[in-house]
Amino acid sequence: MEYETPLFFHVMRYAVRADRDVIDMVSGNPDWEPPEALREGLREYADLESSEFQYPPSDGLLELREEIAARRGVDRDQVVVTNGAGEANYLAMARALERDRGSEVLLTDPVYPYYPGKTTLLGGSQRFVAAGEDGQLDPERVREAASTDTSCLVVNTPNNPTGAVYPEETMRELVAVAEEYDAILLSDEVYDHYDLSGTFASALGVESENRIVTDSVSKTLAITGFRVGYAVFPHDLAEEAKSRHMLINVAGSRPAQYAVLDALRETDPAYHEANRELLAERVETFTGALEAAGAEYTRPDGAFYVMARFEGYPGTLENVEALIDDIGVAGMPGEAFGDSRSDWLRFALVTPRVEEAAERLAERFG
Amino acid sequence: MEYETPLFFHVMRYAVRADRDVIDMVSGNPDWEPPEALREGLREYADLESSEFQYPPSDGLLELREEIAARRGVDRDQVVVTNGAGEANYLAMARALERDRGSEVLLTDPVYPYYPGKTTLLGGSQRFVAAGEDGQLDPERVREAASTDTSCLVVNTPNNPTGAVYPEETMRELVAVAEEYDAILLSDEVYDHYDLSGTFASALGVESENRIVTDSVSKTLAITGFRVGYAVFPHDLAEEAKSRHMLINVAGSRPAQYAVLDALRETDPAYHEANRELLAERVETFTGALEAAGAEYTRPDGAFYVMARFEGYPGTLENVEALIDDIGVAGMPGEAFGDSRSDWLRFALVTPRVEEAAERLAERFG
Repeated sequence: MEYETPLFFHVMRYAVRADRDVIDMVSGNPDWEPPEALREGLREYADLESSEFQYPPSDGLLELREEIAARRGVDRDQVVVTNGAGEANYLAMARALERDRGSEVLLTDPVYPYYPGKTTLLGGSQRFVAAGEDGQLDPERVREAASTDTSCLVVNTPNNPTGAVYPEETMRELVAVAEEYDAILLSDEVYDHYDLSGTFASALGVESENRIVTDSVSKTLAITGFRVGYAVFPHDLAEEAKSRHMLINVAGSRPAQYAVLDALRETDPAYHEANRELLAERVETFTGALEAAGAEYTRPDGAFYVMARFEGYPGTLENVEALIDDIGVAGMPGEAFGDSRSDWLRFALVTPRVEEAAERLAERFG
Repeated sequence: MEYETPLFFHVMRYAVRADRDVIDMVSGNPDWEPPEALREGLREYADLESSEFQYPPSDGLLELREEIAARRGVDRDQVVVTNGAGEANYLAMARALERDRGSEVLLTDPVYPYYPGKTTLLGGSQRFVAAGEDGQLDPERVREAASTDTSCLVVNTPNNPTGAVYPEETMRELVAVAEEYDAILLSDEVYDHYDLSGTFASALGVESENRIVTDSVSKTLAITGFRVGYAVFPHDLAEEAKSRHMLINVAGSRPAQYAVLDALRETDPAYHEANRELLAERVETFTGALEAAGAEYTRPDGAFYVMARFEGYPGTLENVEALIDDIGVAGMPGEAFGDSRSDWLRFALVTPRVEEAAERLAERFG
């Protein structure tokens, strides 16, 4: 079996091995600080009794599930703490496919490349619905693509790579399409704390037995390496997802869960506000330089990414590698996100050197 | 789809809710201390730069893979760091089944209940080979059960629940059977640091492209909740297992991996020796009391468990629950481990109250 291994690791390796200074804008690793309570939580944990070092409940520390449930306005029995949103999405897609409503997974184009990879792993087939130029998803196009063979619709808002934030109406319509075919809407909301537009609407805002929401603290608390995420299931779908989680992973890592619980409890909204402001400034800086260079570019409403198109320089892996060698700026090839953005490059604004990167790009292409 | 959810969690929940003092001998959670270097590693990690809080390499921190590779005498490219041995076993069984050599998984009876659960999850079928009364596995019986439909043979040494440690000759023969049918021998060796007999032989001692070894530090370092395990694959099988790992979990939890690396580097063999001595003393105490009570029992050569059979008291879930209510001793029903041990109860010697538990059992059944 061949999987579509995401290209991230390939590009990162290339950048690390390059024989020059490279500004890393490949992957969505925040470069800002996690909350201080997170570090404090780890120190506290290190001194606990050894019984606290043993298996946590399979579906996550009870208090962490309660904290998440309270924040999301759901019942704690619906919450499964996972090894990051990666596992949460896997569990959700598996759960959708094993309902035997169909074997097709509707994805967007452009798409976050792990979704097609998971679809293939799970034996599902893929159908892509094109997002608009502005990254928005037209629910009518989703409706046209849906059929009785649709098991699952996977969306991501705020969106990687387009930066689109879907309005409440879109979310409501997407849930409606899922209900029409008794399929599952899977809404991956890992960038929910990086909505720069104020228009973010969680799928949890629409009551339904046909939607699963996944999220994580990887971006929220700037700790992608801790691997603490979660899925919120409808009551009827939770138990078997928990069994799959148990049979694959037994449980998630307890030191990480403990520290995250502390951080969630003690971190002020000002922490998130400051991160959004930092990101908004970087968007200004970066898009300003792209504008000056005469490039086409996206202006994200949320998430970490700007896409850019340079005349005569399509978004191939080859061109990404050439850019690393020539000017020391590492992005991601647009073709990694599907056919529609193959002329584009994606840059993650997770480096203090955004301005320098923009200048290098402006000089190269301006 | 129905999975065979292990009964551990059910029994533990029953024990916690019981209206009396209960000695917990259900699950294999060590009650001894982790090495001090483990705690120190967590404290160190809490103070690192925030870049160290981001995604580790998908297959594990490079230095951790190198440490494991050096200890096991394999190439680091063969090592995948997983979310505990649970995920390692899942990846190994998945890898065996997707080779399309057959859909059958050979398991032992008695069996660790997660193996049949994973087999079902992966769409494989099961065939059981009975272990002897003493827990030893006769490779000839395995050979008789094997066929061209065999994709995988799963063994566990030192064994949970029997306490058997398979000698080198058994391991060599099991690898030979796997090679005869181009199947995979999966050897789960999580109790390798708890061999009380001095006869433990890893499957890695037999060179072959047909064996995968899984292990973890959960028992070795008394940290079942950290979820750090690993699988050692033949070179040809490693890449696709790493893809599956990446597509499901992205990576393992970094604080846990960091602390484990510190602990592996700095922990003296005396730490493991002391744990084995503690376990050996508990075996003496517990089996002595069972002897006095006139019960049949196993005397483990390794791992954490003693099985006991009391006249007229079969190892059903009902009887386990009654024992919790009546005398406050919580074990596991033998029937959870397969038909052959359905008359037996399993007790995990991971409590300082082993002597008290033995006295309660002696009083109840003596």
